[in-house]
Amino acid sequence: MLRTRTLLSRFTRFGQLRLSSTISIPTTQKGVIFYESGGPLHYKDLAVPKPGNNEILVNVKYSGVCHTDLHAWKGDWPLDTKLPLVGGHEGAGVVVAKGENVRNFQIGDLAGIKWLNGSCQSCELCEMGHESNCLQADLSGYTHDGTFQQYATADSIQAAHLPEGTDLAGVAPILCAGVTVYKALKTSGARPGEWIAISGAAGGLGSLATQYASAMGLRVVGIDGGDDKAKLFKSLGGEIFVDFTKEQDIPGAILEATQGGAHGVINVSVSEKAMSQSVEYVRPQGTVVLVGLPANAVIKSNVFHHVVKSFSIKGSYVGNRADSREAVEFFTRGLVKSPLKIVGLSELPKVYELMEAGKILGRYVVDTSK
Amino acid sequence: MLRTRTLLSRFTRFGQLRLSSTISIPTTQKGVIFYESGGPLHYKDLAVPKPGNNEILVNVKYSGVCHTDLHAWKGDWPLDTKLPLVGGHEGAGVVVAKGENVRNFQIGDLAGIKWLNGSCQSCELCEMGHESNCLQADLSGYTHDGTFQQYATADSIQAAHLPEGTDLAGVAPILCAGVTVYKALKTSGARPGEWIAISGAAGGLGSLATQYASAMGLRVVGIDGGDDKAKLFKSLGGEIFVDFTKEQDIPGAILEATQGGAHGVINVSVSEKAMSQSVEYVRPQGTVVLVGLPANAVIKSNVFHHVVKSFSIKGSYVGNRADSREAVEFFTRGLVKSPLKIVGLSELPKVYELMEAGKILGRYVVDTSK
Amino acid sequence: MLRTRTLLSRFTRFGQLRLSSTISIPTTQKGVIFYESGGPLHYKDLAVPKPGNNEILVNVKYSGVCHTDLHAWKGDWPLDTKLPLVGGHEGAGVVVAKGENVRNFQIGDLAGIKWLNGSCQSCELCEMGHESNCLQADLSGYTHDGTFQQYATADSIQAAHLPEGTDLAGVAPILCAGVTVYKALKTSGARPGEWIAISGAAGGLGSLATQYASAMGLRVVGIDGGDDKAKLFKSLGGEIFVDFTKEQDIPGAILEATQGGAHGVINVSVSEKAMSQSVEYVRPQGTVVLVGLPANAVIKSNVFHHVVKSFSIKGSYVGNRADSREAVEFFTRGLVKSPLKIVGLSELPKVYELMEAGKILGRYVVDTSK
Amino acid sequence: MLRTRTLLSRFTRFGQLRLSSTISIPTTQKGVIFYESGGPLHYKDLAVPKPGNNEILVNVKYSGVCHTDLHAWKGDWPLDTKLPLVGGHEGAGVVVAKGENVRNFQIGDLAGIKWLNGSCQSCELCEMGHESNCLQADLSGYTHDGTFQQYATADSIQAAHLPEGTDLAGVAPILCAGVTVYKALKTSGARPGEWIAISGAAGGLGSLATQYASAMGLRVVGIDGGDDKAKLFKSLGGEIFVDFTKEQDIPGAILEATQGGAHGVINVSVSEKAMSQSVEYVRPQGTVVLVGLPANAVIKSNVFHHVVKSFSIKGSYVGNRADSREAVEFFTRGLVKSPLKIVGLSELPKVYELMEAGKILGRYVVDTSK
Repeated sequence: MLRTRTLLSRFTRFGQLRLSSTISIPTTQKGVIFYESGGPLHYKDLAVPKPGNNEILVNVKYSGVCHTDLHAWKGDWPLDTKLPLVGGHEGAGVVVAKGENVRNFQIGDLAGIKWLNGSCQSCELCEMGHESNCLQADLSGYTHDGTFQQYATADSIQAAHLPEGTDLAGVAPILCAGVTVYKALKTSGARPGEWIAISGAAGGLGSLATQYASAMGLRVVGIDGGDDKAKLFKSLGGEIFVDFTKEQDIPGAILEATQGGAHGVINVSVSEKAMSQSVEYVRPQGTVVLVGLPANAVIKSNVFHHVVKSFSIKGSYVGNRADSREAVEFFTRGLVKSPLKIVGLSELPKVYELMEAGKILGRYVVDTSK
Repeated sequence: MLRTRTLLSRFTRFGQLRLSSTISIPTTQKGVIFYESGGPLHYKDLAVPKPGNNEILVNVKYSGVCHTDLHAWKGDWPLDTKLPLVGGHEGAGVVVAKGENVRNFQIGDLAGIKWLNGSCQSCELCEMGHESNCLQADLSGYTHDGTFQQYATADSIQAAHLPEGTDLAGVAPILCAGVTVYKALKTSGARPGEWIAISGAAGGLGSLATQYASAMGLRVVGIDGGDDKAKLFKSLGGEIFVDFTKEQDIPGAILEATQGGAHGVINVSVSEKAMSQSVEYVRPQGTVVLVGLPANAVIKSNVFHHVVKSFSIKGSYVGNRADSREAVEFFTRGLVKSPLKIVGLSELPKVYELMEAGKILGRYVVDTSK
Repeated sequence: MLRTRTLLSRFTRFGQLRLSSTISIPTTQKGVIFYESGGPLHYKDLAVPKPGNNEILVNVKYSGVCHTDLHAWKGDWPLDTKLPLVGGHEGAGVVVAKGENVRNFQIGDLAGIKWLNGSCQSCELCEMGHESNCLQADLSGYTHDGTFQQYATADSIQAAHLPEGTDLAGVAPILCAGVTVYKALKTSGARPGEWIAISGAAGGLGSLATQYASAMGLRVVGIDGGDDKAKLFKSLGGEIFVDFTKEQDIPGAILEATQGGAHGVINVSVSEKAMSQSVEYVRPQGTVVLVGLPANAVIKSNVFHHVVKSFSIKGSYVGNRADSREAVEFFTRGLVKSPLKIVGLSELPKVYELMEAGKILGRYVVDTSK
Repeated sequence: MLRTRTLLSRFTRFGQLRLSSTISIPTTQKGVIFYESGGPLHYKDLAVPKPGNNEILVNVKYSGVCHTDLHAWKGDWPLDTKLPLVGGHEGAGVVVAKGENVRNFQIGDLAGIKWLNGSCQSCELCEMGHESNCLQADLSGYTHDGTFQQYATADSIQAAHLPEGTDLAGVAPILCAGVTVYKALKTSGARPGEWIAISGAAGGLGSLATQYASAMGLRVVGIDGGDDKAKLFKSLGGEIFVDFTKEQDIPGAILEATQGGAHGVINVSVSEKAMSQSVEYVRPQGTVVLVGLPANAVIKSNVFHHVVKSFSIKGSYVGNRADSREAVEFFTRGLVKSPLKIVGLSELPKVYELMEAGKILGRYVVDTSK
């Protein structure tokens, strides 16, 4: 009995709560808002929102800008946004207030705001940790005002814990781009020592994917174009680079290099052709992961080939709380980083223009203080 | 685009909320309470509790009585209870009120109250659906007043949804005993067509385990004593009965009947000897599941044998929300049922006496109206 | 030490070999052979083959006739057959001779010959139990003379063990059709209590799939046409029947009946439209299994929908040795049976005609003695 | 159709065989043999064995010396050895002859001989890739003459393929020690980024385990004693070192460093106390792996604690063909290496003496030419 009690007390002493403090909060703030899909983006004074019973209020310091934000603004996805809307879903900052039921955050803690702001926690999907697929999902910068403002509310259960001392600008893109590619890698089922192919391996998402894969003990074959991309890819831990500007037979090159195909394929590229081609170089019994969200693309697969090679095509949609925590931890340990360009929040409309024109390399992060 | 929108709307139309109504609630009620561990059990008037923001208030109609309730009262487990305490954690009733944040229950819904009343939902274990192992777990009838009263509060996320028309007395034992054995069967990893051995197969928990196993397509070998038990076991879907009052070599008999050992073993019995013996008749690469909670028992395993046979010994602790929903669904479909003896709540002290004397067969359920 | 030795001896006594006997074998036999793809099928005297070192010689009593045999004869698949060829890959009979290295069969044992006759056992796929996908797979009735003859050789490792007393005519279709649908059900990942949708549920493969699914504790929703099919489906353990001759919105009906979609979908039908439609009624996080081998069909999936619902499309190709053993065991236990029409081997050309004309319901089995 | 054929031909072109050559073989050779358990070890001329139909003959260049060889000689395990016996099961060399059925090796290929020399390939365990647990397992240097001779036979299916140019002395210990710890790490179920604790982390097996774990993306906490060990551990990729000569509360230190316990624990140490202690610092839902083979040790676990923490104790026994291939690949990629001391085969008796006296650090490898 004494022995059992000792074992148990050892077991349970890791659930302690820390003490809390308070921070003063203004009533107005700066943010970027739009009133209709595709309408003007206003950088203006907005009321600081109040957290609900289960919410925290985060003083957002930095927010990443993601392609999804462009879709949210244009309204070209088959899911309706809230209007008017403050976009943004890669925010990192400091907890300045919280609802009465919140026990997992203290004032002064660092917190991250992600695409998935909240879910019902009681449907079958939530119960099993597939909360991203919850039919009542609440989405930051889409159905809930997001992180393109200085103060944003977030569901305390879904908000990410960031350790003291975290680089808040650096972690911002991890909260969506990082989590998404990390989850895709997990979804592939590839184990340490196995091959993962990344289509678009040296782009924004791809360069994160390459770093995560390498840190996870995977061997990475990357597909992208040009010598600079090749060099970047190798510097991130990639092993085999297939240059689509030089290689005529991409599937053949990958089958050769991997001695039979990649165990997993991550389609960071959203090209319909590239996605459909990826079934040719996946290994028998391997997995092709779809992770991008093009508005109308279709993937095609020859049934005979699909059966005889017995591979899978799986969709992977952002990540759950555990995926997010883990993805942040790889960042915190210094194993992944995203090349950033930091601009003021007031310059967000220009960033959208560049993004729409396809002129962005790497990740833009906005500083909400400017 | 139209096509995508159609696919998505089809996908999302299953998340609708239903309308709500109200029900009048008294301020006092009957319940059984004790003020110190092992002290007198008082059947008396208690204040009706008020649900918190995230809670529902359930008018409990029936509550099962479980061995754990005896431990909670005696205080002989290495986890402290709340005091004074209203015990009980297998309650079924009707939602009569709810907190302002509750969206997954409506007034008038049927609900079940389980051992796990709430968890932090934000630790690593909760994130992964192992909320029973949460270090901040809140336990009905242990750290939170339970179901031996007419009105009890429950965390809305953890409370079980029961379909309209559910037999509330019948479902009560499912909410702990049923969930626990069902989860243990899942934990065993045994697949349809494989053998599961149940030690104590015709007792209270065992007879539930036998029914669940059979409904899951498993082949059941049961260990218990006597011809009546054998007959009951067969009637519940069991295939091979090993009678410990007749069989000298229990492991040998099971190895023979299963052609090499059971793929999974569920130790419903908490006898130290029976548990340690179960490693002898588990199949190579199989799993021995520990599920009972004896206060000071130790399981022993020969390391050489453990390695060469490469089996596992796993602990399984109640179940999470998904396990609970699934366990209830097997009951609702008529595939499992627990033999019950229904008595009034006022008679609970007598039930404790019988339980302590080891004189209980089957499950007692209390009717809170009496 | 003594204790360990006892545990081990108990553990190892299940690997004993039985004694053997001999049986006389003729030098010629009856069989059906063709010399060119699509050429005449000759029922004639053939030499009895001799088993290699690792082979058994089976006196085939009955052989099922499968759609694959028609493809083998016509040569319309993208894999070359051996020529001349004796087809057939669902044979059941008696072991009459064996090579010098064979230790797992004795003369007089019952054995089954399957589609996969042999594999290299040393490539990565074989090592992991994916021997059906082995690039050096040897296929009965395709690259190795098959079971449309009275005596056929088979690799001893891949040949199926059939218990004494097995109904050899009844088990024949299990060896390909049964194994294939059983493996597809395993590949779906659906667990007991979850929903499996079977497209073509009351046809030849479908009615086997329905029985296996039911025996595995799955809830089956079947799609097929007509009241007779509905009745048959229910008699085999099916729960919800969706009649395509009456239901306009098949996906909608399944989503409704299963409260959100089937956890797994088995496409027994090889209609391109039906396969592509199945992604609409699979549950989020669920799995669509492709199992048929149409020559040129393509499955299409909307990428946005695929990602947001996070489902999988997996190919499943026959089964490995374990799948085969398990599939046979369900048959032996009386849980599945295939409706048969038994004709003489000499009538095989007529069966091919009927099959090509699409006039076959249920499974033809040839009796090699006629 | 053309498209399908193209996909398939691409798929199948990776299964080509290479051409073969021949090498001259002597009739006698040098080897170390003993005639009774614990009897004299004779370094003498032995006949060169002839490979069976399914075997290769390997000209062994180097062989590792493992603790198991000592048990084989002393006969103190509860499994009988063949007598007389040539021990050794970590051999690396060149294929010089092969049986008529062997297709996966060519004369001149490099090959490795492992503990598991052969298995029945047709029992349930073999079918599922658990061939190490096969009840008819044939063991090199135990039930089959091993690698302490210049020419040894090996089952072609179980022999390991070593790429051209492999360091044959370096790879020898990988074939048993390396495979064993690698498999144990896989058995733990720990995923990249999670914590693995290794008890005995800087010893012979432990230093291999630390390197494999690090290459697999795991975070390693090592338990061992002394500053030299600490330094070695860190140099191999270890993260947290717990020095048992300094730390009073080993479980507490690990719980603290890993924020709740290690996801997996590998017990390289075979101390009964250390094994039983490891259940205290495994994380809830984590796995304690037993991998050593002490003759009579017993592991004990408190049942209440086992259930509430829901962890597993799993046995892991060497590895299968896939594990072996993968373990060798990590070596070939330069990610792991074992510190070696190379001596002549004739000095083997002295090595046994040192081993029995517990005076060996690192791994001895014998050069069969001396």
